[in-house]
Amino acid sequence: MLSTRFTQRFGLKVPIALAPMDPASGGRLAAAVSNAGGLGLLGGGYGSHDTLQAEFDLAGDAAIGCGFITWSMGRDVSLLERALARRPRALMLSFSDPAPYARMVTDAGVPLICQVQTLAHVQRAVDCGAAVVVAQGTEAGGHGFDRQATMTFTPEVADHLAGHAPGTLLLSAGGIADGRGLAAALMLGADGVLMGTRFWATQEALIHPAAKALVVGATGGQTVRTSVYDIARGRQWPPEYTGRLMVNDFIRRWHGREEALKAVWQDEKVRVESACEAGDHDCANVTVGQAIGLVSDVPPAALVVRRVAEQAAALLRARGASACAAMPQATAATA
Amino acid sequence: MLSTRFTQRFGLKVPIALAPMDPASGGRLAAAVSNAGGLGLLGGGYGSHDTLQAEFDLAGDAAIGCGFITWSMGRDVSLLERALARRPRALMLSFSDPAPYARMVTDAGVPLICQVQTLAHVQRAVDCGAAVVVAQGTEAGGHGFDRQATMTFTPEVADHLAGHAPGTLLLSAGGIADGRGLAAALMLGADGVLMGTRFWATQEALIHPAAKALVVGATGGQTVRTSVYDIARGRQWPPEYTGRLMVNDFIRRWHGREEALKAVWQDEKVRVESACEAGDHDCANVTVGQAIGLVSDVPPAALVVRRVAEQAAALLRARGASACAAMPQATAATA
Repeated sequence: MLSTRFTQRFGLKVPIALAPMDPASGGRLAAAVSNAGGLGLLGGGYGSHDTLQAEFDLAGDAAIGCGFITWSMGRDVSLLERALARRPRALMLSFSDPAPYARMVTDAGVPLICQVQTLAHVQRAVDCGAAVVVAQGTEAGGHGFDRQATMTFTPEVADHLAGHAPGTLLLSAGGIADGRGLAAALMLGADGVLMGTRFWATQEALIHPAAKALVVGATGGQTVRTSVYDIARGRQWPPEYTGRLMVNDFIRRWHGREEALKAVWQDEKVRVESACEAGDHDCANVTVGQAIGLVSDVPPAALVVRRVAEQAAALLRARGASACAAMPQATAATA
Repeated sequence: MLSTRFTQRFGLKVPIALAPMDPASGGRLAAAVSNAGGLGLLGGGYGSHDTLQAEFDLAGDAAIGCGFITWSMGRDVSLLERALARRPRALMLSFSDPAPYARMVTDAGVPLICQVQTLAHVQRAVDCGAAVVVAQGTEAGGHGFDRQATMTFTPEVADHLAGHAPGTLLLSAGGIADGRGLAAALMLGADGVLMGTRFWATQEALIHPAAKALVVGATGGQTVRTSVYDIARGRQWPPEYTGRLMVNDFIRRWHGREEALKAVWQDEKVRVESACEAGDHDCANVTVGQAIGLVSDVPPAALVVRRVAEQAAALLRARGASACAAMPQATAATA
């Protein structure tokens, strides 16, 4: 429907990838996105053998890929080996240096996708043999940098790749939840998009229904970047990475009081874990990005894929037609 | 060349407005943008009668508008009266509540433009009779909120306007410096764009050449939101507003040490002002946004206007044509 280098290279119908969110992106969600013509990526997350195998099994025959939180997976590289043994459509590494693991992926003949937050990350990914870089803007949900937004980072990465690695594909991530965002990303120089928050609020996502309902009613100004849940869960994220989440009581209580939280984190961990089970999102994390203001329902993932692609194509067609009509050929060629 | 509701309503050739930057957007820059077919807005800034009259005079017969920092102009409303007496093409109010001054503008028959950072601001602007709202993402240079990026804020504001004030125009601001950004903003639902940083680095901008040269060599990750220059200059910005600037020695020294800075701000004010005169931008402010990574020259403003519009039109035409070709009419209509 919307052909790009990304759809051509990966045999997709639409230039849309599912962010490998932990825990939202399970096998059923990844399969639904792949079966709808996109690239579904299973959220390998912090890494658990049992979960990984079970979710791969749930995806059945769908041509899905898998993504890991690199620094966490690196504590047990056999997770990566197991994932590669499932012949994934792609393997995505996010957060911290991919270099120690990139060769395992490329040697297995699996396309490597690296998520990046700076131009230095981009070059590192290229040097590691990445087939695709995902340029993540700070508006994205979950972990990332508080550095650059999608609107500037996408074209800046596109320029870097054009000069240094023109064969490397570029996906845009952060703030994209509908066809307007996909069309905008293509204009900015991306070959496609990676969407998290929009798929987080789908039927298949492994997220408590109460959390999905919260997001449907939210506006985009209701998120913040913070480290309080990482502290409360005892997760050792490398410096500079914070998480974007929807603001709730827990964040209001602890954000800005990180030292105090560190003193009681084990108690808070128990509270947060219980709250997750119970669907109490005043305390449990709601890990989503600024795109929540564009999410107003909880449809099946396949419907999201179709709507986003159709809306983008219609917008490009309509605006392209008017640009065509209004502009002499010669003028356009000078741009 | 690129017709939108904004070009139609304001009689423009291109849907591009100049941000009324203080001090960059003087009369010559505003005139250059207007004469090139965009909407040039003089930077009324913090407000000085002498500067305002002199810069209006420098614009000659060009159909320019004017913008103010609302809370600062509010200390001497005669500034607004004088600006309206010049019959500006539009009057833009940014930063803090426009309500006390909006009626003066609309009663004068001058189109009111309000810059907004939240959905509540949008509704306030609509209630004040704004003809145009400028949705400012956090990647923008200068003052604004650290709340939402252009990629999500533009479509969210577009949705709000569609539901509550469909006749109000929408410009997108923050992170837009080339035709990719303009095309993306149009896809996101904007009627046009307001660009600051790109025009800041033009021949006509009232900025020290050394600062322009710095920006040409910079990447988009080299900016930060901070209040240190507001403190050093004794400017009483309302809470929530911070400024985005290029990181330099001054910011590295004081950012995060605001209380210490407040104790010595008068000494630092002298230092900063001297540094501005001298073109020492280790100390003087370089007030630009994340779009600096997309700026690689210092052309005349008219060339910027033409390049941005031509690149956007060419991108839309090319992508629109391929979307047209690849997609059956019936499918597009369902989006």
